[in-house]
Amino acid sequence: MADPSDLADRVQAGDLRSYELEAHADPDVATAARRELLARETGADLDAIGDYTFDAADVEASIENAIGAAQVPMGVAGPVPVDGGAADGEYYLPMATTEGALVASVNRGLATVRDAGGATARITDSGMTRAPVFRVEGIAEAETVVEWVANHEDDLRAAAESTTSHGELIGIEPYVVGDSVYLRFAYDTKDAMGMNMATIATEAAAAVVEAETPASLVALSGNLCTDKKPAAINAVEGRGRTVTADVLVPESVVADRLDTTAAAIAEANTRKNLVGSAKAGSLGFNAQAANVVAAVFLATGQDAAQIVEGANAITTVDDRDGDLYASVSLASLEVGTVGGGTKLATQSEALDVIGLRSGGDPPGANADALAEIIAAGALGGELSLLTALAADHLASAHESLGR
Amino acid sequence: MADPSDLADRVQAGDLRSYELEAHADPDVATAARRELLARETGADLDAIGDYTFDAADVEASIENAIGAAQVPMGVAGPVPVDGGAADGEYYLPMATTEGALVASVNRGLATVRDAGGATARITDSGMTRAPVFRVEGIAEAETVVEWVANHEDDLRAAAESTTSHGELIGIEPYVVGDSVYLRFAYDTKDAMGMNMATIATEAAAAVVEAETPASLVALSGNLCTDKKPAAINAVEGRGRTVTADVLVPESVVADRLDTTAAAIAEANTRKNLVGSAKAGSLGFNAQAANVVAAVFLATGQDAAQIVEGANAITTVDDRDGDLYASVSLASLEVGTVGGGTKLATQSEALDVIGLRSGGDPPGANADALAEIIAAGALGGELSLLTALAADHLASAHESLGR
Amino acid sequence: MADPSDLADRVQAGDLRSYELEAHADPDVATAARRELLARETGADLDAIGDYTFDAADVEASIENAIGAAQVPMGVAGPVPVDGGAADGEYYLPMATTEGALVASVNRGLATVRDAGGATARITDSGMTRAPVFRVEGIAEAETVVEWVANHEDDLRAAAESTTSHGELIGIEPYVVGDSVYLRFAYDTKDAMGMNMATIATEAAAAVVEAETPASLVALSGNLCTDKKPAAINAVEGRGRTVTADVLVPESVVADRLDTTAAAIAEANTRKNLVGSAKAGSLGFNAQAANVVAAVFLATGQDAAQIVEGANAITTVDDRDGDLYASVSLASLEVGTVGGGTKLATQSEALDVIGLRSGGDPPGANADALAEIIAAGALGGELSLLTALAADHLASAHESLGR
Amino acid sequence: MADPSDLADRVQAGDLRSYELEAHADPDVATAARRELLARETGADLDAIGDYTFDAADVEASIENAIGAAQVPMGVAGPVPVDGGAADGEYYLPMATTEGALVASVNRGLATVRDAGGATARITDSGMTRAPVFRVEGIAEAETVVEWVANHEDDLRAAAESTTSHGELIGIEPYVVGDSVYLRFAYDTKDAMGMNMATIATEAAAAVVEAETPASLVALSGNLCTDKKPAAINAVEGRGRTVTADVLVPESVVADRLDTTAAAIAEANTRKNLVGSAKAGSLGFNAQAANVVAAVFLATGQDAAQIVEGANAITTVDDRDGDLYASVSLASLEVGTVGGGTKLATQSEALDVIGLRSGGDPPGANADALAEIIAAGALGGELSLLTALAADHLASAHESLGR
Repeated sequence: MADPSDLADRVQAGDLRSYELEAHADPDVATAARRELLARETGADLDAIGDYTFDAADVEASIENAIGAAQVPMGVAGPVPVDGGAADGEYYLPMATTEGALVASVNRGLATVRDAGGATARITDSGMTRAPVFRVEGIAEAETVVEWVANHEDDLRAAAESTTSHGELIGIEPYVVGDSVYLRFAYDTKDAMGMNMATIATEAAAAVVEAETPASLVALSGNLCTDKKPAAINAVEGRGRTVTADVLVPESVVADRLDTTAAAIAEANTRKNLVGSAKAGSLGFNAQAANVVAAVFLATGQDAAQIVEGANAITTVDDRDGDLYASVSLASLEVGTVGGGTKLATQSEALDVIGLRSGGDPPGANADALAEIIAAGALGGELSLLTALAADHLASAHESLGR
Repeated sequence: MADPSDLADRVQAGDLRSYELEAHADPDVATAARRELLARETGADLDAIGDYTFDAADVEASIENAIGAAQVPMGVAGPVPVDGGAADGEYYLPMATTEGALVASVNRGLATVRDAGGATARITDSGMTRAPVFRVEGIAEAETVVEWVANHEDDLRAAAESTTSHGELIGIEPYVVGDSVYLRFAYDTKDAMGMNMATIATEAAAAVVEAETPASLVALSGNLCTDKKPAAINAVEGRGRTVTADVLVPESVVADRLDTTAAAIAEANTRKNLVGSAKAGSLGFNAQAANVVAAVFLATGQDAAQIVEGANAITTVDDRDGDLYASVSLASLEVGTVGGGTKLATQSEALDVIGLRSGGDPPGANADALAEIIAAGALGGELSLLTALAADHLASAHESLGR
Repeated sequence: MADPSDLADRVQAGDLRSYELEAHADPDVATAARRELLARETGADLDAIGDYTFDAADVEASIENAIGAAQVPMGVAGPVPVDGGAADGEYYLPMATTEGALVASVNRGLATVRDAGGATARITDSGMTRAPVFRVEGIAEAETVVEWVANHEDDLRAAAESTTSHGELIGIEPYVVGDSVYLRFAYDTKDAMGMNMATIATEAAAAVVEAETPASLVALSGNLCTDKKPAAINAVEGRGRTVTADVLVPESVVADRLDTTAAAIAEANTRKNLVGSAKAGSLGFNAQAANVVAAVFLATGQDAAQIVEGANAITTVDDRDGDLYASVSLASLEVGTVGGGTKLATQSEALDVIGLRSGGDPPGANADALAEIIAAGALGGELSLLTALAADHLASAHESLGR
Repeated sequence: MADPSDLADRVQAGDLRSYELEAHADPDVATAARRELLARETGADLDAIGDYTFDAADVEASIENAIGAAQVPMGVAGPVPVDGGAADGEYYLPMATTEGALVASVNRGLATVRDAGGATARITDSGMTRAPVFRVEGIAEAETVVEWVANHEDDLRAAAESTTSHGELIGIEPYVVGDSVYLRFAYDTKDAMGMNMATIATEAAAAVVEAETPASLVALSGNLCTDKKPAAINAVEGRGRTVTADVLVPESVVADRLDTTAAAIAEANTRKNLVGSAKAGSLGFNAQAANVVAAVFLATGQDAAQIVEGANAITTVDDRDGDLYASVSLASLEVGTVGGGTKLATQSEALDVIGLRSGGDPPGANADALAEIIAAGALGGELSLLTALAADHLASAHESLGR
């Protein structure tokens, strides 16, 4: 049985490479050896990182050159009743974050939603996309390629779907810029976030395009997907789930619990989230949607880099004769309940807290429900922050009057 | 000594509220009681979440309604030599992620950077911003408020800096839209990411504006900051650190190690990262910068929701007579080595791996160095992905020729 | 017969209102009376404005409170051979502008295109859009409205097309934000630019939506059209014609006529049009497309405010082993050869210069051809400006070497 | 004395080139000869285009390859009282357009403004920009160049201002992307729109940068200016004049004249101009600002391609206890009262109508006033369109209630 220290010696002696350690020892030992090496080279004490409690073998598909784990504090907000297309019931929201006050803020907002009878939520669009870019001779050839694609969507669907037992091709949208042709493939990936599924399926379809047309593949992702970058195409057309949660808070709740008025909250929303974001050249017209998205993503094993797209959200507030209508519409929330980080020990437990671990019935229902519940959480975050602002504003107005 | 199960009973009986548990038991017991409650209500098994290894008392400033921790696998990439304005040496990059292949990909890219002699990096702009929005009577009053602010920047600096021992006000940029006045305060927050520092300092300055001008504060953040939303103001003007890393890879390294050409890599970059992102209406002209930002952010305790701004990055590639010049410029990378999540057990160890735990000498040098090293990591990620694309493309070209 | 001076007296005496003058005199006299009034009140001499040469009666549908005309100098560039989907032949480009050097610049670029054998051009997408916004109770009702629309597209088509003898509804794309539902109607408006046609047709369809669903119309344009505003939805999805023109310029022409290299031009394009526009947060990745669009729009009677959308263009340049490939892709070029200002005296003559006055055969072919020819003109403008930059750059490089 | 027909013969015979005609005949004859040529080659009748009434010699600096003029119908709206920083009085607004109903619509809006006592307007920022792009070796060299520029702003100012008797350098903002350095020079160009002045001054300064630093100029415009493209940098930071006009309309005027309520207008503005534009990924949060900008630009000889930047406008509406507050803030309105097309016959008369022909006292005051008056005109256009929408909406609401 290999000893971490011996293995570290061998790497330092040049007999082994660090990334080969797993081939010479069981994963936990390899991980320990790598920590030992790193400690020797950097002087860092890695005890806490090494004090993870999962089985290193269970995370081999998620990490390379493993040294242990980051432990991110997790709290819980809610419960919040959600009347969704897929979600239906009261849900607790597990949130992993290091930002103090965030869970408390969302919790307060969700309490208001609860007092108002709960949130309504709906998925209004859905599809995971991948958009390869092809090189063509010029615009004339681009036209022939685009026409070929339009006329052979069935062939491309067959190629794409041959690679997956679950995914379904929804459609292919072509975009042409000079001698570059981008084909944005959209898939129903059911309960998986689906980026890998979409990539593999698109690779197969792209091979058909290359074989049957003069187009040459330059990159399997041509950035019109758009993955992990802020992009209007996602904010406008959606990616993953496009989802809205809303609530109507009676005037009495606004007054008694929030100590402010719908008009004051609506003003804060307009000046900050609408006009302020407009002036900033933003694609995010909200207060803190990304905070909620990030915390639930970390808790439930979503892809942390996709927090980027999760920030493409618009918050609206109406003063309806004293009652408060509030909504959050997230254009591109990319979530799954199977695959990727969702299988890990703490993450799958967090999904259990929501009641959504693994695939739904029908397939896709769990990821839909997760999106709706995150939207409800984001609604809580918005309400909490906007009412705090509005209450301060009123307080300050009262002070002014008092002077 | 309280027992978790008893405490849970008391909450269920209505004697206690869940968020009050820490007032009745030590943090670890309170956390256990909350898990017990959650388990009873949701049926979820929370053993792994409860199997955290830090002291719950140490995370009280980071989380409310604590139930434990998410454990995110951590690996390491590098080392990579970085010749920066603050960074200077060889650095390992700790990365926490659940996306398989990411660490390996970055590691490959960094190996290329290493073979090329290392990355150069520089901070080209710096400043953490907070932009309150004020209501005024109209544009005439807006003008007087803006003039007053311009003429009293010293007073506002005094008020702002009275709240902080470290932070310094850099300047105040006014933006006016009708009867809303936005004042974007920028601070040098040294080694702290600085959002809280900036908020508290701005609150004090905003109070002066309210007291001395007819402006009324509507929201301490008017979204021109812009925090945790995709926004052109950050991509153009920067927020946190604006940082570039670049490398010149000799033709021999491109050919031997990467098995492709600078021209092929440049073409992939142009069609994907430049033209593709242009057509997508994106603010991110890169391949996967957010992946690296996210993984290092999670490892080192940065604010995960600020991954959003970290994606505002432009990657450029030049074919310099066969040599490959590549750069990544991150417009708004918000990082710190003190405060927030950086103090937590695993996160501070990860900062030790980089050699940047706690404050720098001079103050700010550690956060500067961290930004430069993340940029170098992002450069590795870009090189790795682009060369993979280019190599595939060449391979496919070879196949075509072989037909 | 009314006398302008008497009419002016009567308006000043309060007997008549200025906008009623056409009811009391023939249009030319009314126009003269209004000039007289304006001269009296402002002291301005309006002889040149009054020295228009059309019949005032002929512009009554184009202007109210008429006082005469602005005379904008018109020049001509070309001819340029265009091999398009609709255009086919050599075309002169009439351009009305007050910017000295513009026509000469475009003319030089088109000479290069001509030397290279002409431009290729294609319409890659087409459709004039109008997007009303409806208010609903909340997201649940939004879902039912969107479903109703999806299930009743035939009914909506019938309503929409009942208002027009030419226009055809292409499709309806729904967008939901909280309690607002936007329906983006797209039409084939044939040779008309089609904004009015689309508005009238959509008004009829919107009335059906209001009658049959709980949605209430708030505004016939909800800004997702998007008309006369810079908007990613147009840059990404197109509006009016989406059109590309490109050219392959042989190395010999680049060297002899342009006195530069494809590589130098490509570099200027990358640093300026791609990376520079990226950093600017722009939707226009070109050098001066709007200049050409504006000048041809003014010459041919297009809607000048739609120059805004005409600037959503991406220019690409490839160095193909010394040959120069260049393209311009205009995402949202809104043009017509019938209706609006195209009927006016000078404007219809300008259309005659291109050979595209009035409707095409088949319907839409003339507007398609006009879009392709404008794209070719824009290509000329890009080539001219980029080669000038590249030549300067080479010159400056030569100087440096000489030092 | 040359005869147009003879000259045309000579061009067709190859003795002369079309663009050389002005060297062989007086401008009007050369213009006639070119029409003759064009008529022969295209069969077009060019009588109306040739029926211009200015002296062709007077437009030689504005057009090349002249064939005559486009005559664009001009009307007048107003008068509107404007209480501006520079404007002060009642102003008529000349508008040249071919869009029927536009002048009437603006006129109605201005009547409301007039009833409300007039518009207030202010310039909140000012500066014409030009941003050359330089190539450097990499980020380390970029840093030295940027530092050199910061330390030698006086030298660069001296170089820049040596080229102009009026212009003043306001400042230089550096932007770095990898091995490209962009320097955004901002100038006070007084009453000139100033693009040419800024370009020439920047050329001189750029030569100093090239001579004194390792940077090589690639393009005198690197698109961070940003001229004639939609760009967030202009919408956020401004270009030309940043100007707001606003008005407070008493409830009685809203009710009696507009037949609607402030609340209904505010709702239309929020759903259309704020939320709709947000969802569209737009930089223009207004209804029809570009229509007013375009029409006044054409009437007064502004650069028509800069209508693009003129569309970067945000409209806000508040319901103030029944009174209606409305504002339009144009971020980047590029106007002049001297130079360019403002000198032409009809255009300078249109400036006389406003009372702003030629330079102001102090210099810049006339262009400032023009910007304020255009903003007031845009305000009229917004009010008119929004109230029409709101009135329809109310009408429709009434109908619904009647059912």
